[in-house]
Amino acid sequence: MRRDELTKIILPEEEIPKFWYNVQADMPNPLAPGLNPQTLQPLAPADLEPIFPMGLILQEVSQERFIEIPTPVRELYKQYRPTPLIRARNLERVLDTPAHIYFKYEGASPVGSHKLNSALPQVFFNKQQGIKRITTETGAGQWGTALALACKLFGLEAMVYMVKVSFYQKPYRRSIMELYGASCIPSPSNQTANGRMALEKDPETPGTLAMAISEAVEDALSREDTNYSLGSVLNHVCIHQSIIGQEVKAALEMVEDYPDVVIGCCGGGSNFAGIALPFIPDKLAGKKIRLVGVEPAACPTLTRGVFAYDFGDSVGLVPALKMYTLGHDFTPSGIHAGGLRYHGESPLISQLYHDGLLEAVAVKQNPAFEAAMLFAQTESIVPAPESAHAIRYAIDEALRAKEEGVARTIVFNLSGHGFLDLFSYDKYLSGETEDVELSDEEIKRNLGKLPQVP
Amino acid sequence: MRRDELTKIILPEEEIPKFWYNVQADMPNPLAPGLNPQTLQPLAPADLEPIFPMGLILQEVSQERFIEIPTPVRELYKQYRPTPLIRARNLERVLDTPAHIYFKYEGASPVGSHKLNSALPQVFFNKQQGIKRITTETGAGQWGTALALACKLFGLEAMVYMVKVSFYQKPYRRSIMELYGASCIPSPSNQTANGRMALEKDPETPGTLAMAISEAVEDALSREDTNYSLGSVLNHVCIHQSIIGQEVKAALEMVEDYPDVVIGCCGGGSNFAGIALPFIPDKLAGKKIRLVGVEPAACPTLTRGVFAYDFGDSVGLVPALKMYTLGHDFTPSGIHAGGLRYHGESPLISQLYHDGLLEAVAVKQNPAFEAAMLFAQTESIVPAPESAHAIRYAIDEALRAKEEGVARTIVFNLSGHGFLDLFSYDKYLSGETEDVELSDEEIKRNLGKLPQVP
Repeated sequence: MRRDELTKIILPEEEIPKFWYNVQADMPNPLAPGLNPQTLQPLAPADLEPIFPMGLILQEVSQERFIEIPTPVRELYKQYRPTPLIRARNLERVLDTPAHIYFKYEGASPVGSHKLNSALPQVFFNKQQGIKRITTETGAGQWGTALALACKLFGLEAMVYMVKVSFYQKPYRRSIMELYGASCIPSPSNQTANGRMALEKDPETPGTLAMAISEAVEDALSREDTNYSLGSVLNHVCIHQSIIGQEVKAALEMVEDYPDVVIGCCGGGSNFAGIALPFIPDKLAGKKIRLVGVEPAACPTLTRGVFAYDFGDSVGLVPALKMYTLGHDFTPSGIHAGGLRYHGESPLISQLYHDGLLEAVAVKQNPAFEAAMLFAQTESIVPAPESAHAIRYAIDEALRAKEEGVARTIVFNLSGHGFLDLFSYDKYLSGETEDVELSDEEIKRNLGKLPQVP
Repeated sequence: MRRDELTKIILPEEEIPKFWYNVQADMPNPLAPGLNPQTLQPLAPADLEPIFPMGLILQEVSQERFIEIPTPVRELYKQYRPTPLIRARNLERVLDTPAHIYFKYEGASPVGSHKLNSALPQVFFNKQQGIKRITTETGAGQWGTALALACKLFGLEAMVYMVKVSFYQKPYRRSIMELYGASCIPSPSNQTANGRMALEKDPETPGTLAMAISEAVEDALSREDTNYSLGSVLNHVCIHQSIIGQEVKAALEMVEDYPDVVIGCCGGGSNFAGIALPFIPDKLAGKKIRLVGVEPAACPTLTRGVFAYDFGDSVGLVPALKMYTLGHDFTPSGIHAGGLRYHGESPLISQLYHDGLLEAVAVKQNPAFEAAMLFAQTESIVPAPESAHAIRYAIDEALRAKEEGVARTIVFNLSGHGFLDLFSYDKYLSGETEDVELSDEEIKRNLGKLPQVP
């Protein structure tokens, strides 16, 4: 079929990647080592064993370019992968742009987001090590939902600490996690010492991902049969998500196209890493390709944070990582893109951004919703508010192409659908969503509390 | 690829059918004519012109076997079709059945159900005739959502009367319709004379599809630029949905399989017609294949109704049709499968059922939810409560295959996902869903009010 005829490009099932891609093999500058949060000395793999299985720890530090996907994981990927790469023909027409706009539809996963790509292998490697129960945090709820399902499919228990503001903004997220057999409570909770302390300090806190992580890790440390699982940020998560970008490359080859710009929304970094990092070898080989992460202006980690060691959680239970950060005490406002409310950024994304291989922009909430509405009314899919950030930039890029009268190929990751975010659209439609402006002082205040690394 | 290896069978985009299939060309006994609701005399096509465009009226009475799909409709089908046919490998494993279980995943449509298959052509033919605004009713909200999107894509206004009990059970259905630019109000409403009368009679009524139809038709009759649109029951709707079954046949050929039994849940009949009727020619040619409609025990139109002329709405504004019916005054209890709460049944399904070519069974709400939970926890997709009825029967059939030690191929239509039905799952999980038993008297009472046809 000619490249200009197809709307959906769907790879055959046998072309689901057999290997994950690990960008560490190709990085011009290696990652700085993680530090033990107590001693602030470089981490030994054994430091991670109380909460992670060895299979994932080995991936975390692996320098291998390709890591084989275990058969049971790949069999479950077949329930929804390869996801379609869709040409946004109606959107192109309405924008009257010479650009080709494609989106990779990760919302096609049964949980409605890309998060299942990492939940399945994480639970698999935990099960392999005899773990019976997994704790985690969730922001918007997409990660918690994915982990709940993956635990059910592999026969493990799941316990999800959900950031309080999202728990109430997205009430049916709890329902779907329970339907998949998981427990889900708002964080901070009174189930952990860290949660109780946070509630004492501020009973009205909207919660943060960093606090929910502290609670989930505390819970995991307290039980022998329990491990902790993280849905973004860490290297092994970015590795798992690499199947997104690998599929995008193969699908574009089918229609003889190649991206000028690849876009992902960016919170902890997993979906941006997933779509963008498999293009790093091309970029290093001299291909002219831009890789752009889009973060919320209310939580502008890459664009206004610093590249420094910081804790991933709010109380310093997990390793200190060198990353772009707004400080582990930063509490972003309760924007509707709950999955992007994280103070830090994946160390892989951070290092590559620092080295000039990735770009970043920040987008305000209302322009993101406006782009999401246009997308829904032309391409029919209601996007998650997180993904709306990527759409905003893709549309702006297509409009620039129009202004300049130059064709270009734009690809973005539609990391999730918005069927469980209609509450947020209601707020937007009734004019109740605010565009928060962060002052320089507010950003500086939290950056003053970074750990002092020797 | 060998038939036993694939999990998802996805036809190439160019194999989206180019023609709808019209079973009227193959029926052993023709449909009884529709009757003018005032005179109860056979309907002339002109009787339908005040509310339907000529393109759809011609389809309604067509005896042609194949009807060409207009290019603009087929282009929009490409946004989500062909939908995948998925082998339920995990469910098979858990049931330990020798049966092959496949499901056609119509929830893959951007609105989450099969309804868009008919909304797109209905709006297209209305636009072709210069209509600017379309009214409709919706039960669970799936049809209203599809019509809202189709109107937006073709640039028409949409006005949706939503059955009151569903409006409050599924609050975010209104949000998504508004996001697509439609207006949506609970029915009975005070916007129409029929609605006001119904509210006077019983301000607490949960509403019925029949009443919502009366309101939508009254609205359409009152404005020159406005037509009415129906999401099920009528011949042209069943014709549009035939792309489901046609795709199923082609996909099964790819893996060299053929169904012993094809299953669809059954309210007005459109998704059951869609998956089942394209197999009628095979059955007439002697193939041993069972086609089973699954209705809710709380609204058992085929299994406990009568085959007689009745009105499609509650006040007799739309033609009287010969169909299985529980009487146009029947108010089904507020079960969560709101899309199956209709007193009548598609005349096509009714006639073919009467002639022994289709089967029907009734399923109670709790066993349907129980089946849906097992499905979600093995096949990962959360089904709409309507589709759960089909799953219940598919599982029972797979268990019978196991008991009998005989392999068989079971195919059902997963007509929609349940992301907007989590309220209902909450109720089920907290033990608040009831199994209604209808007495013979209750059924007889409403059947006493059928129109007396001369």
